[in-house]
Amino acid sequence: MRLTGRRLAHVREVHRAAVGDRLSVGLLGGLLGSGRVTQLDSECLAMDITLDQSPPSKLPLTLMLALPRPKVLNRVLASATSLGVARIYLVNAWKVEKSYWKSPRMEGSNLLEQRILGLEQAKDTVLPELHLRRLFRPFVEEELPGITEGSLALVGHPGAPMPCPRAVQGPVTLAVGPEGGWIDAELLSLRGAGFQAVDLGPRILRTETAVAALVGRLC
Amino acid sequence: MRLTGRRLAHVREVHRAAVGDRLSVGLLGGLLGSGRVTQLDSECLAMDITLDQSPPSKLPLTLMLALPRPKVLNRVLASATSLGVARIYLVNAWKVEKSYWKSPRMEGSNLLEQRILGLEQAKDTVLPELHLRRLFRPFVEEELPGITEGSLALVGHPGAPMPCPRAVQGPVTLAVGPEGGWIDAELLSLRGAGFQAVDLGPRILRTETAVAALVGRLC
Repeated sequence: MRLTGRRLAHVREVHRAAVGDRLSVGLLGGLLGSGRVTQLDSECLAMDITLDQSPPSKLPLTLMLALPRPKVLNRVLASATSLGVARIYLVNAWKVEKSYWKSPRMEGSNLLEQRILGLEQAKDTVLPELHLRRLFRPFVEEELPGITEGSLALVGHPGAPMPCPRAVQGPVTLAVGPEGGWIDAELLSLRGAGFQAVDLGPRILRTETAVAALVGRLC
Repeated sequence: MRLTGRRLAHVREVHRAAVGDRLSVGLLGGLLGSGRVTQLDSECLAMDITLDQSPPSKLPLTLMLALPRPKVLNRVLASATSLGVARIYLVNAWKVEKSYWKSPRMEGSNLLEQRILGLEQAKDTVLPELHLRRLFRPFVEEELPGITEGSLALVGHPGAPMPCPRAVQGPVTLAVGPEGGWIDAELLSLRGAGFQAVDLGPRILRTETAVAALVGRLC
């Protein structure tokens, strides 16, 4: 196996590896294992690799996320991937600015790279599914019922009488709103699609903090 | 109340407020309430404010964090503050690079600003305590037993037989290691100070993701 570019720089600058060192490696979509460095210079790293371990299991969790602002998008994709979220839907909402959909960070190459960074962090090799849905209502009315089938579907809503459950056994679908929250019509649609509104406490959290805290609580 | 600088820019660019609008406000160390905008231009915002609500309770959680790299430090301070962590100790560890302690981000003004950003995010007004400890052993041996007294003290350690507990009633002290983990001698010191090693699962998470997920799980 040969590495160049970002991953070569990471091995040189963060691991500070030398010829003969062993590094953890993984093949995208495949197994994990280790590699022994056989050659290393400023251009290229070569390794003899052995792949013999399965990647960690995914959480049975589907995340439906109102598209966050571009700066937050990168962090939340990498962090949700590192946490083991199985599927991510990025959806529109009333309070999502239209310009977010046109950000260069929405290009497929970036959406892939952020998930790969999350996999590298967590020593995982299996990409979470990622789907973009720019039309809220058709998605919620036509597609979402099939997605949530057999899962506990939860939407965070400040002041809901039910607190967010803990340590749920079985699949969960979790809807996380935009910075200003879901509007009433969106909450109504989500309830119509079988979502229960749950209270997440008095603190308003940034999207990537909220996602990590909810995964810790639910899974 | 008059705002200038960063907070004025936030009200103009994010809230896009106009004269007459109501905004949520809070006084650092004091109460929360609302303000009606009475004047707004590029130089200054003036509000009539009413402060009549208590800030949300802190979590009974003390975080002992091996000093993360400067880029991560800002995010983890803001996010731990937004989550409601009551006390934060930034401590040295074998795998903390010495240069991290000399970063400009370690200046008091930045350490304060990051926590204020976390308070603003969460609609809180009470700063978490923040303490810096550059010497690991004297801290762990002399000071830490007093800090953990009456709390459940946990340190994350991959492969520990006990999984991290959930929904702990009562105070918790949580030790989170550096990117490369605690070394054996540090774990031994922590166990000597009454910490239980707990397994956090097979995934290695970035510090700010790990802290949020652990808070969600524990609190």
